[in-house]
Amino acid sequence: MSKSIYEKRNITMMMDLYELTMANGYFQNEHLETKVAFDVFYRRNPDDGGFAIFAGLEQVIEYVEQMHFEEEDIAYLRSLHLFDEAFLEYLQAFRFHGDIYAFPEGTIMYPGEPVLTVVADIVEAQIVETEILAQINHQSLIATKTRRIVRAADGRPVSDFGARRAHNNDAAIYGARAAYIGGVKGTATVSAGQQFGIPVGGTMAHSWVMYYGNELESFRKFASLYPDNCILLVDTYNVLESGVPNAIKVFQEMKDAGIQSAKFGIRIDSGDLAYLTRKSRKMLDEAGFEDAQIVISNSLDEVTIGSILKQGGRVDSFGVGERLITAKSEPVFGAVYKLCAVQKKDGDFEPRIKVSETIEKVTNPGLKEVWRIYNEDGFAMADLITQKGEEVDPSESYRFIDPKRPWKRMYFKNCTAKPLQRLMIRDGKRTEAEPSTREIAAYVEQQLTSEIWQEEQRFEFPHIHYMDMSPAYYEMKMELLNDTGANL
Amino acid sequence: MSKSIYEKRNITMMMDLYELTMANGYFQNEHLETKVAFDVFYRRNPDDGGFAIFAGLEQVIEYVEQMHFEEEDIAYLRSLHLFDEAFLEYLQAFRFHGDIYAFPEGTIMYPGEPVLTVVADIVEAQIVETEILAQINHQSLIATKTRRIVRAADGRPVSDFGARRAHNNDAAIYGARAAYIGGVKGTATVSAGQQFGIPVGGTMAHSWVMYYGNELESFRKFASLYPDNCILLVDTYNVLESGVPNAIKVFQEMKDAGIQSAKFGIRIDSGDLAYLTRKSRKMLDEAGFEDAQIVISNSLDEVTIGSILKQGGRVDSFGVGERLITAKSEPVFGAVYKLCAVQKKDGDFEPRIKVSETIEKVTNPGLKEVWRIYNEDGFAMADLITQKGEEVDPSESYRFIDPKRPWKRMYFKNCTAKPLQRLMIRDGKRTEAEPSTREIAAYVEQQLTSEIWQEEQRFEFPHIHYMDMSPAYYEMKMELLNDTGANL
Repeated sequence: MSKSIYEKRNITMMMDLYELTMANGYFQNEHLETKVAFDVFYRRNPDDGGFAIFAGLEQVIEYVEQMHFEEEDIAYLRSLHLFDEAFLEYLQAFRFHGDIYAFPEGTIMYPGEPVLTVVADIVEAQIVETEILAQINHQSLIATKTRRIVRAADGRPVSDFGARRAHNNDAAIYGARAAYIGGVKGTATVSAGQQFGIPVGGTMAHSWVMYYGNELESFRKFASLYPDNCILLVDTYNVLESGVPNAIKVFQEMKDAGIQSAKFGIRIDSGDLAYLTRKSRKMLDEAGFEDAQIVISNSLDEVTIGSILKQGGRVDSFGVGERLITAKSEPVFGAVYKLCAVQKKDGDFEPRIKVSETIEKVTNPGLKEVWRIYNEDGFAMADLITQKGEEVDPSESYRFIDPKRPWKRMYFKNCTAKPLQRLMIRDGKRTEAEPSTREIAAYVEQQLTSEIWQEEQRFEFPHIHYMDMSPAYYEMKMELLNDTGANL
Repeated sequence: MSKSIYEKRNITMMMDLYELTMANGYFQNEHLETKVAFDVFYRRNPDDGGFAIFAGLEQVIEYVEQMHFEEEDIAYLRSLHLFDEAFLEYLQAFRFHGDIYAFPEGTIMYPGEPVLTVVADIVEAQIVETEILAQINHQSLIATKTRRIVRAADGRPVSDFGARRAHNNDAAIYGARAAYIGGVKGTATVSAGQQFGIPVGGTMAHSWVMYYGNELESFRKFASLYPDNCILLVDTYNVLESGVPNAIKVFQEMKDAGIQSAKFGIRIDSGDLAYLTRKSRKMLDEAGFEDAQIVISNSLDEVTIGSILKQGGRVDSFGVGERLITAKSEPVFGAVYKLCAVQKKDGDFEPRIKVSETIEKVTNPGLKEVWRIYNEDGFAMADLITQKGEEVDPSESYRFIDPKRPWKRMYFKNCTAKPLQRLMIRDGKRTEAEPSTREIAAYVEQQLTSEIWQEEQRFEFPHIHYMDMSPAYYEMKMELLNDTGANL
């Protein structure tokens, strides 16, 4: 008997089996108390963009605070005949006691930098991998994609209409959350509004018109119910011949009855949207309804929105569904979780590196700090990776290495440096008050308005953010790489 | 304060706001007891394939059986200032009392046919839309995509490794379920194994090798822990120079110690997989380990798998992650929910149609039946849409209409006809025992082996399944279309 989608959830078991088989191995080899560090980072911006938005941290925090195995979970794991009984006992009492450092949620992030670092006993650090990646990959994907769509809309509000095409319930609900962080003004998904305080909205479906069988009658009924949010769907039969004329009739009737609507207008969900919105705008204006809004939907994304506006489409707001909620153009966000350091008996952390054929795929070893370097105007010039504990003062003259051009002598001057990772979980517990989703969205907006170059935000060949290293960090990495290479 | 991912879920509120604003309108207009019918259908096979797999029905059944609004939900809805108090009271006592007809889960389906039909009071039928579509769109998408990957693997087992790149928890868990329905032999996602009885499996991560710092040592430790499922990950440093030689050493040590492993071999997760598997196979064979398995992973899908095998890659099984669990090539499944009939005062259902500029987008009106027509060998020749209650006997000579060529006189002969929709929910309650996920997967396999033409299963220009109509149904649709067209 499978579990109902209504039951209490057990997110703890949402992990790859190998997390547990490896953990069982570490446990049996008595490495239980060896501390390690894992970094989360990604390698490439989706859609060849210039940046991504770090999202999903709040759900990661909830997860590590609450994860635990229930009796039925232990029974299931026992039934697999893979695990030592002592290990199963250990799991039964399991709680996450580690530390997690992370960028604040909503931080603009770039490839190659550790956006989240888990420092914990090896078993604990290993088994949180899958859920941490799933949350951050999903929500960062949707927030980043959404920002592209919002940018294309050029100041016009965008709403999330995607629930029915989302990859199941969580994708709709956390997707709406991520979309709000990325810049939509609202969502149609009721439970996302309820859970995260996101404004909810919506218009009407074709079924409303088809049910009454008479378009004009159905519009009248809607207008009498919702005079202050009276957006009429005009494409059930024919937009220009039937829908818009009937809408105008109803708007006129409202006006004649002295009703001052706070928001009224039409939605077009099919056809040539550039053409239909221009024609509809003209009809509405000629009828004296210059303040009637035009909302469009139907497989929109940053490309179609940009194209419709370029063609002179007259649109006041956009309802965006499937291509936002699935990030259709590139539906995979590839953040990974890589071991970067192992604690030695003396307490120091020894760096670990994963080599590869290409220098870009070599991991950044060791405990580290990520700094964002700002110029005098407050714009982000570069990010800088240093060893943990290094001092960085770019106010006078600070030498750094660009790993792509390590031979150049380069300096930051008249800059400030801010460390991006903060200790978010200490000994398994949250360290900071939970920010609201609205605050996270405002933080994204603030960075993109006054910290991140427009040159990094454009779609076409965006400026590639500099990812620099301190000389000490670079030297350590190169030495480790030489040692590892020599061992092969 | 947002809700934790650990709390009991409230899937009832996972709906578009407009479902509730329209329902509030139907309620206030006293249409509460008017019965209507909505069809779920889709318009195009993903990836230009020849068919899709109907999945997600079990979760739809659970949903309608259990949906209810809790006090906090009503309080939230009240706070939106959109709803009549009497309507909120109605919602507080809401239960779904309607009927749902559907194809059995796992049925091969084609564009344009109603795979699920809700017959219920208008308010009830309206507000179940979003969740029904979300479940069916997501799971049908993943099952259908998975089948393509399984087909490309040409008999070799495929496993789902996708959780970390899934669009959040549900996408991982129900995605694994759908992947199993589509033909994977197992999943790495523990909770999917637990909830749906899917075999779970996995190997090791790079972190296992990096943690021990010594590849050979890490392989030895793994082999001593899991001698009977000893798949060693050989690409942490260098596959051919280090990984495979170290794996061979360990296999030799196991052999020397008299250990008979049930399953052993290597996994390669990066590099040129066609080349590396050929070279590795040769090395393993030359060392006397012809029975060592080669597992590959790393952004695989039907295209890369097909290409690797065509190049002579030597692979025993595939671990497929992100491109399966997100259906990367086409991550949107576009099933829609359209009103097709409204009950009149005399009890009869009056058909409703949504017209469009193109004939393919015109909906199929009215209450109807879908039949699959089989030839003497048991292969499916066509699907046939008739009016509800029509008799169909294609054993002698049955005339039908191909709507794309309505002028042709066409007949089924020596065929049998099976109605595809079954009454799955009567008065809000399940009518049939829940099938296991394994049974659903077996049903898919059986159809694709002995009922569905290979010509429909190939990737390149598959045969387009015929979607025919009875003369009576076709005539009714054309009359309705003429009437509606005349009214514009």
